[in-house]
Amino acid sequence: MHKLVLIRHGESTWNLENRFTGWTDVDLTPKGIEQARQAGRLLKEEGYEFDLACTSVLKRAIHTLWHCLDAMDRQWLPVIKSWRLNERHYGALQGLNKADMARQYGDEQVLIWRRSYDVPPPAMREDDPHREGGDARYAALQPGEVPLTECLKDTVARVLPYWEGELAPRIRQGQRLLVSAHGNSIRALVKHLDGISDAGIVALNIPNGIPLVYELDDDLKPLSHYYLGDAQAAEQAAAAVASQGKA
Amino acid sequence: MHKLVLIRHGESTWNLENRFTGWTDVDLTPKGIEQARQAGRLLKEEGYEFDLACTSVLKRAIHTLWHCLDAMDRQWLPVIKSWRLNERHYGALQGLNKADMARQYGDEQVLIWRRSYDVPPPAMREDDPHREGGDARYAALQPGEVPLTECLKDTVARVLPYWEGELAPRIRQGQRLLVSAHGNSIRALVKHLDGISDAGIVALNIPNGIPLVYELDDDLKPLSHYYLGDAQAAEQAAAAVASQGKA
Repeated sequence: MHKLVLIRHGESTWNLENRFTGWTDVDLTPKGIEQARQAGRLLKEEGYEFDLACTSVLKRAIHTLWHCLDAMDRQWLPVIKSWRLNERHYGALQGLNKADMARQYGDEQVLIWRRSYDVPPPAMREDDPHREGGDARYAALQPGEVPLTECLKDTVARVLPYWEGELAPRIRQGQRLLVSAHGNSIRALVKHLDGISDAGIVALNIPNGIPLVYELDDDLKPLSHYYLGDAQAAEQAAAAVASQGKA
Repeated sequence: MHKLVLIRHGESTWNLENRFTGWTDVDLTPKGIEQARQAGRLLKEEGYEFDLACTSVLKRAIHTLWHCLDAMDRQWLPVIKSWRLNERHYGALQGLNKADMARQYGDEQVLIWRRSYDVPPPAMREDDPHREGGDARYAALQPGEVPLTECLKDTVARVLPYWEGELAPRIRQGQRLLVSAHGNSIRALVKHLDGISDAGIVALNIPNGIPLVYELDDDLKPLSHYYLGDAQAAEQAAAAVASQGKA
């Protein structure tokens, strides 16, 4: 039996401001830092050990991982970072307030942008000054790999090659992985692991900063999954995520 | 022309207490954190960009790197960690006060332990509870690779394979490397790069938390080297390191 631990980054400044974030590289709030430390303390208390940690190239996930590693006193663990674990790209919505958008376009439209499986938000313009194309961290990507917007289906399409190429082979070899990532890159992984339908994934929300443990068999089929710590608190936190897009 | 940046970790708690540290995994002091941030700010101001960062598996070097990356806003840079960049193992002296040892054994004996090229300090006992052999971070090492003590010659012997196998090939490929390490692992690298004699290396001291830039030709022969920032402050800091072992 393999154990895989997923953790969505702690609260970010734009979570706090209820803004669409996507690939915008905002940092953790003090509460987000404390959530990350608490996650690390939980993992330590429960005796979790890891062989490798994986994260995106966005600092809210990287800092979450660093605070976890500090709380576990495992700063020395090898870490690999990939843009494929980045949050879903939110296109032209990045930076805008979710509740403002709901007042302007209606709750239903915002729910479509936030949770539709295959309808992406309006795309960022090619000449948008906030476009990530010129960012050195994406310099090695192929033309077209840096998105201008993504629906969850697009996120799944770039997360799964990373799962198949990097994560799954290591887990099969017996490596214990800690993955610090984002609401939608984790939803993409969970959709794949649990075989959730395109319709079913709409209702799934991932709370910030709570370790989500998957127990997997030798074929990497889930035997069970659970949040570490206070299960009720995790449920409430997930419900709060679901309500962010309402006017 | 290639540029390689070496940085010794910021002040650690045992630097402050003037204790032999070696492989003991002590953390940075608040001053050490500030030195690391200042190093990152200097690198950013001077326009340095990197493709890869390398560090030891000891948290004073890892945290120095993290604070540097934060100050440069380059948290996403790939990082590799290796025990081969660890500080020289100080054997049975680890934890003991340098000035106390000088009062007890004389300045000359302590200088030999600190700076002799090929005389190691007294070895740690196999059954010493502080021995690092059982530490998970060293689990992949061959029997005998976890030292019980080291002279600088021993440190050179385990740093050079890492230079030849990991660092030099990447530099030749054009990668810009930032290496966060320790007084003696950096002395080992500098001895090799500059072709310093076994006798000559005794007088070389590396100050905490100041980026040391090597400009290298295509054969990785040094064209020049210099500390970033205030050169006089760097010299004074190096002189202070030299005087630590006096009664």
